[in-house]
Amino acid sequence: MRIIGIDPGSLVTGYGVLDTDGRRSTHVESGCIRVKGEELPERLGFIFRQVQEIIARHRPDTMAVEQVFVSRNPSSALKLGQARGAAICAGVEGGLAVAEYTPRSIKQAVVGTGAAAKEQMQHMVTLILELQSTPATDAADALAVALCHAHTHATLSRLPAGFARRGR
Amino acid sequence: MRIIGIDPGSLVTGYGVLDTDGRRSTHVESGCIRVKGEELPERLGFIFRQVQEIIARHRPDTMAVEQVFVSRNPSSALKLGQARGAAICAGVEGGLAVAEYTPRSIKQAVVGTGAAAKEQMQHMVTLILELQSTPATDAADALAVALCHAHTHATLSRLPAGFARRGR
Repeated sequence: MRIIGIDPGSLVTGYGVLDTDGRRSTHVESGCIRVKGEELPERLGFIFRQVQEIIARHRPDTMAVEQVFVSRNPSSALKLGQARGAAICAGVEGGLAVAEYTPRSIKQAVVGTGAAAKEQMQHMVTLILELQSTPATDAADALAVALCHAHTHATLSRLPAGFARRGR
Repeated sequence: MRIIGIDPGSLVTGYGVLDTDGRRSTHVESGCIRVKGEELPERLGFIFRQVQEIIARHRPDTMAVEQVFVSRNPSSALKLGQARGAAICAGVEGGLAVAEYTPRSIKQAVVGTGAAAKEQMQHMVTLILELQSTPATDAADALAVALCHAHTHATLSRLPAGFARRGR
């Protein structure tokens, strides 16, 4: 299974593509989309098209995005929401199932504890995927949610059918 | 010129299509998209596709959306942002220029004062477009932003070239 993880942001949107057989995951590509354009519609269109392009290039089977609950202020929540909307629409329009995971379950899956620091996450992503260098924060976050999905999916597929929940 | 106005919302997204020659505007279609789906990606995909469908049906030249500055709480700002992201992406992907207008400039354009109440807006939209019945709030808001764009565009096109601003 090939997974694309997305860490949406109005300035930088991280992405990470990996292959997984449920036990072992391999890094395919990751990076940061630095959002271009002066006006909002242009910027949202940019995110949409860049994600669409990565999907076209790597043809992942599924998309995973971090679920956001709160933000410090309404204005940044609105901006984040718009970027999320653009990125998720690119996934849905690309025919991908899109799964959301809470920050806590991502940390749990990658570091083993729901209270891990950002640096621990970056470190574990680098270790698990045997990367040559530590990826940038946004790319690492995107790889982390993809790893979480790989892990959750693998766990669910090993359970008898009756146990399968929606997996968040 | 044919304009589609959009009033994005995570539960209901209003839309309004009108034709304008700069002086007189005629109602084409308006209504409310009641967002379906249990999960967020499904719901955002629904908004994206419904707006895409209205664009395909009426082939507007341009899209107008209300600009939002603040919201009471971060959680509703995030939800609104996601819906806006989906709707705006549908416009940009449909090849439309998307213009944003502040609530104040919409009221100014439709009612003549920036401090108008919702009911006044609904009333004026009904009058200006000679509608048989008062449209639902979300549809009226969508028609109002479309009317604002029609008005602003007409004003700008009557000004000498040097006067043309970005028009918000």
